[in-house]
Amino acid sequence: MKIEILSKIKKPSDVKKLSSDELVRLADEIRYKLIETVSENGGHLAPNLGVVELTLAMHKVFDSPKDQFVFDVGHQCYTHKLLTGRYESFSTLRTKGGISGFCRPSESEHDTFFSGHSSTSVSAGLGLAEANLISKKDNYVITVIGDGSFTGGMVYEALNNGGRSEAKQIIILNDNKMSISENVGAFAKYLAVIRSRPGYYTFKANTEKVLNKFPFGEKIAKEIYNIKTDIKNKIYKQSTFFEDLGYRYMGPIDGHDIENLCDALESAKNINGPVLLHVITVKGKGYGHAEKSPSQFHGISRFDIETGEPISNSESFSSKFGDYLCEHAKEDKSICAVTAAMGLGTGLDRFSKEYSERFFDVGIAEEHAVTFSSGLAKNGMKPIYAVYSTFLQRCYDQIVHDVSLQKLKVIFAIDRAGFVGEDGETHHGLFDVPFLNTIPDITVYSPCCYKSLYADLSSALYADEYGVAVRYPRGTASANVSKLKFEDIDYSYYGEEAAEKLIVTYGRIADNAVSATDALENTALVVLNRIKPVPEKAFEIIRMKKEVYFFEEGLKSGGVAEKLGAMLIESGFTGKYVITAVRDEFVRQASIADLLEEYSLDVNSMIKTVSGEKD
Amino acid sequence: MKIEILSKIKKPSDVKKLSSDELVRLADEIRYKLIETVSENGGHLAPNLGVVELTLAMHKVFDSPKDQFVFDVGHQCYTHKLLTGRYESFSTLRTKGGISGFCRPSESEHDTFFSGHSSTSVSAGLGLAEANLISKKDNYVITVIGDGSFTGGMVYEALNNGGRSEAKQIIILNDNKMSISENVGAFAKYLAVIRSRPGYYTFKANTEKVLNKFPFGEKIAKEIYNIKTDIKNKIYKQSTFFEDLGYRYMGPIDGHDIENLCDALESAKNINGPVLLHVITVKGKGYGHAEKSPSQFHGISRFDIETGEPISNSESFSSKFGDYLCEHAKEDKSICAVTAAMGLGTGLDRFSKEYSERFFDVGIAEEHAVTFSSGLAKNGMKPIYAVYSTFLQRCYDQIVHDVSLQKLKVIFAIDRAGFVGEDGETHHGLFDVPFLNTIPDITVYSPCCYKSLYADLSSALYADEYGVAVRYPRGTASANVSKLKFEDIDYSYYGEEAAEKLIVTYGRIADNAVSATDALENTALVVLNRIKPVPEKAFEIIRMKKEVYFFEEGLKSGGVAEKLGAMLIESGFTGKYVITAVRDEFVRQASIADLLEEYSLDVNSMIKTVSGEKD
Repeated sequence: MKIEILSKIKKPSDVKKLSSDELVRLADEIRYKLIETVSENGGHLAPNLGVVELTLAMHKVFDSPKDQFVFDVGHQCYTHKLLTGRYESFSTLRTKGGISGFCRPSESEHDTFFSGHSSTSVSAGLGLAEANLISKKDNYVITVIGDGSFTGGMVYEALNNGGRSEAKQIIILNDNKMSISENVGAFAKYLAVIRSRPGYYTFKANTEKVLNKFPFGEKIAKEIYNIKTDIKNKIYKQSTFFEDLGYRYMGPIDGHDIENLCDALESAKNINGPVLLHVITVKGKGYGHAEKSPSQFHGISRFDIETGEPISNSESFSSKFGDYLCEHAKEDKSICAVTAAMGLGTGLDRFSKEYSERFFDVGIAEEHAVTFSSGLAKNGMKPIYAVYSTFLQRCYDQIVHDVSLQKLKVIFAIDRAGFVGEDGETHHGLFDVPFLNTIPDITVYSPCCYKSLYADLSSALYADEYGVAVRYPRGTASANVSKLKFEDIDYSYYGEEAAEKLIVTYGRIADNAVSATDALENTALVVLNRIKPVPEKAFEIIRMKKEVYFFEEGLKSGGVAEKLGAMLIESGFTGKYVITAVRDEFVRQASIADLLEEYSLDVNSMIKTVSGEKD
Repeated sequence: MKIEILSKIKKPSDVKKLSSDELVRLADEIRYKLIETVSENGGHLAPNLGVVELTLAMHKVFDSPKDQFVFDVGHQCYTHKLLTGRYESFSTLRTKGGISGFCRPSESEHDTFFSGHSSTSVSAGLGLAEANLISKKDNYVITVIGDGSFTGGMVYEALNNGGRSEAKQIIILNDNKMSISENVGAFAKYLAVIRSRPGYYTFKANTEKVLNKFPFGEKIAKEIYNIKTDIKNKIYKQSTFFEDLGYRYMGPIDGHDIENLCDALESAKNINGPVLLHVITVKGKGYGHAEKSPSQFHGISRFDIETGEPISNSESFSSKFGDYLCEHAKEDKSICAVTAAMGLGTGLDRFSKEYSERFFDVGIAEEHAVTFSSGLAKNGMKPIYAVYSTFLQRCYDQIVHDVSLQKLKVIFAIDRAGFVGEDGETHHGLFDVPFLNTIPDITVYSPCCYKSLYADLSSALYADEYGVAVRYPRGTASANVSKLKFEDIDYSYYGEEAAEKLIVTYGRIADNAVSATDALENTALVVLNRIKPVPEKAFEIIRMKKEVYFFEEGLKSGGVAEKLGAMLIESGFTGKYVITAVRDEFVRQASIADLLEEYSLDVNSMIKTVSGEKD
């Protein structure tokens, strides 16, 4: 496809000049660009294809950045990026030094909030709007949030506050009948009901358009509009969930009809008080493969445009975990799997089909998932909550209060631990070790290979007493670590017993550490498999060495290396202790290999660090 | 009052034998006991007075512990304790070694879940019920949750799942029109609407009672009941919020009419699928002072029964904080105060009156409070979120994702940091330092006196760039620390410059450390005021000492002492380093003084530790 209009859009005001036909053409060009770029770079495809027209309408009706857009999660902001001066750089999407796959304020004044986690947008938007009210600014705050994100409790907390606020907020519910997986729960069912009602917005707000052209001022137009809306409400008797919470409900309307969307947004502008505009979109719109399998095309790696097939293999820690669980669930009827809308990503696809009665997708409700699991455990089940490391951050208090304090065995299968690569700042799994380190009685394993993964899961299911976490990286295990012999499930010693220098590490980079150890003299290696508590036997070995070099693919603050450092100094260790870990900062997007190099966790850096060539 | 019936209740089945009149008398005796005990020991009074009849009815209709009760927060479980074998020990409530003010499974098989934090009960209850469904057990799970707790998003996450589940759950919404403070938000307003409707339960389920006595079996009775309920729903056209989410709604009913309550609970038993029973109670019922000022009598210290007046003074870190904020808010129009239903406890009472347009009580919605604050900050405000340490645990991800990552200045005024005393395991403020230590760019202050508190708040408001936390204990500052001269806001050095031994500490126990230092020879003291990052100048002093003794009123794992230990070992320090901190466990209830002694943080223990008499 020839890109004719999109290439000329340098700023949002360029969108305002376009005719209806040009907008439709522009939408096609944007879709072409989205599919082309994501097929090369990977990223979120289906969510972005769904909101092309919606984003165009938003930029036509509102004035960004004076009016502020808050995109929930932010994985649907690609069109917004293309319209706000980032068309030229769009091919760098999700690459090192390139533009982010999420909103990033440092990238553009049009990106209001950095995001990546779900269900925060209504809270953030309400804060923006209340600040405007206090400082008497009259610009608009527009929040775009999917129906999937509505399964997260924070949205409800925010609506509960926003519904009684005088601040000007416009919430756009982007209802694509899907979250990441097919949407679950009572709310999804409820939306289906209101979707099927005769939308009182479908006959369009023509009256308003006429009214706005008459010279009797905005205030009177607003009054008339409000009265009309009240009458409409009474006629259609639509007391929705949203109206119960104090929002003026508009909808449902077709999210792929730009003109209709513009009308609706203009009307939303004129309503006093909080508004919820219910827009129906098709996830993956315009690309057959994505429309057919929106879950698979939610967030994806590189793929073939023609066939829709991914360009990579599928064996991974996630799939191995899922298979292990299925194999044991057959005999062990107490095994339950819990996910917060990540069944596919966490490898639970097979389990969800084979053991549907013990599979619980709770929606994007990470906090609930933990406490719910705790309830299952209390009544005799063995719940395994499979979750990405970055999203487990949301459950800190639930792990403290509803797992640790209860002395109940909930098992956490923590996927995407360590660097995740291209998703960047919001998605790296670098916090789980530090925060789990602060919680009593939680055992943490960090396997470096599938064999350890199985051993850890087995221990979690059948040996450990209280809460257990097994954390593993995205992707596949490497072969190098097969040299390690885990005589003890807790750790492995590799190299000469008498070596005076010692590398200590765990997880994926054990592979690099083996290579570095092989290349170094007078150097041995301890690979921890259990990282909390630090195994006593391993500690006894470590404290006898002259020089200890800890390499950690995780945050330095609160990590295992710091913990071990404190143990060593308390034990009277007087040797050299060197920590190489991630500086306390948010790590930007890049390939895993690039990141390991940047943070001195690659083979060469390890060799240089131990041999003293690097400090 | 003479306790005649209550003293004979040894187990729930004893309640079942009582006549209606005896139950009414029993309720009076329970209230007498509650008021008497709480006036002596402190505790939660108003919430417990409100649910006396409800708890009696629950024990009359259900069979605990086979049927499981989950009390949200757990601060309304006193009657439950009195009826389940704990009448004799009730006078030990909240004392060292005594019974807990919350549900504690280790105390009784009738306490299902340990709790203390809000809005978790529906999740836990659903987990219990799903486990029952899987293992084909037919016992009941009954959740009791206040309308205040409904402002927490987890409840909604759980309802979203429970509403489509086949598991047997009975949720009792204890609507006292109040949470801890007066209830806020759209949901409270909505409840007021449904409260005012003609309750379709008020004519009582007499038909059911008759039906249940006929010999055509439970199944048919259930069917008939279900049909009847459907018809009732249609007649009354009551599509409530709860029904939208899939729950059978019953109510509203009078929560102080035991007979009516028993009827309703019997009917709830017979309904297929999830039920929500809406019960109206009076918070503080039966004690005039508490009915009049339910917020003040929510959680209280010792008081005079006659006058209702507290037996203690009111000057505290909280009140000083509140006053400071008011004084600056007059000039600085950007100061906003945010609380999650803790306006009174955090000292924001005055602010809420003087600057109501900049005061935001968001309900028990800790997560939302942070992200909302972040929105305020983005648009130019200086939000101060005042929160108890233990409840800030719920905001871990929001601090990471919506404050730290955004590089926005949200100020956290963390009250109840360190030991809190009688509230016990769930309420100590021991986790905030460890988990804040893991978050980039957040500065943390821990003042030991009011002067430092003011300096820290000033720095937070006018000097620091990003997120800042100022944490302080419950209660008053002690006088001893006035000996410290904070030449530098970050730390204070006390004692001889040449001293070879050094005590390091921060916060409330600086007071003990001053006394210990005075009593010891060759010993100086560093009191940290800024604890994250550890002040460089202080570190330079510390690393030059021969022996360093860190005393920390906080968890050892991830605390400042461990962090400093790692810094020391990395810097090549080869002296002695001794950490005295709270073992990684949940600390039980006791007075602050007792706890400081138990964890070796009192003056004597400090002296013994430094002089080598203790290890």
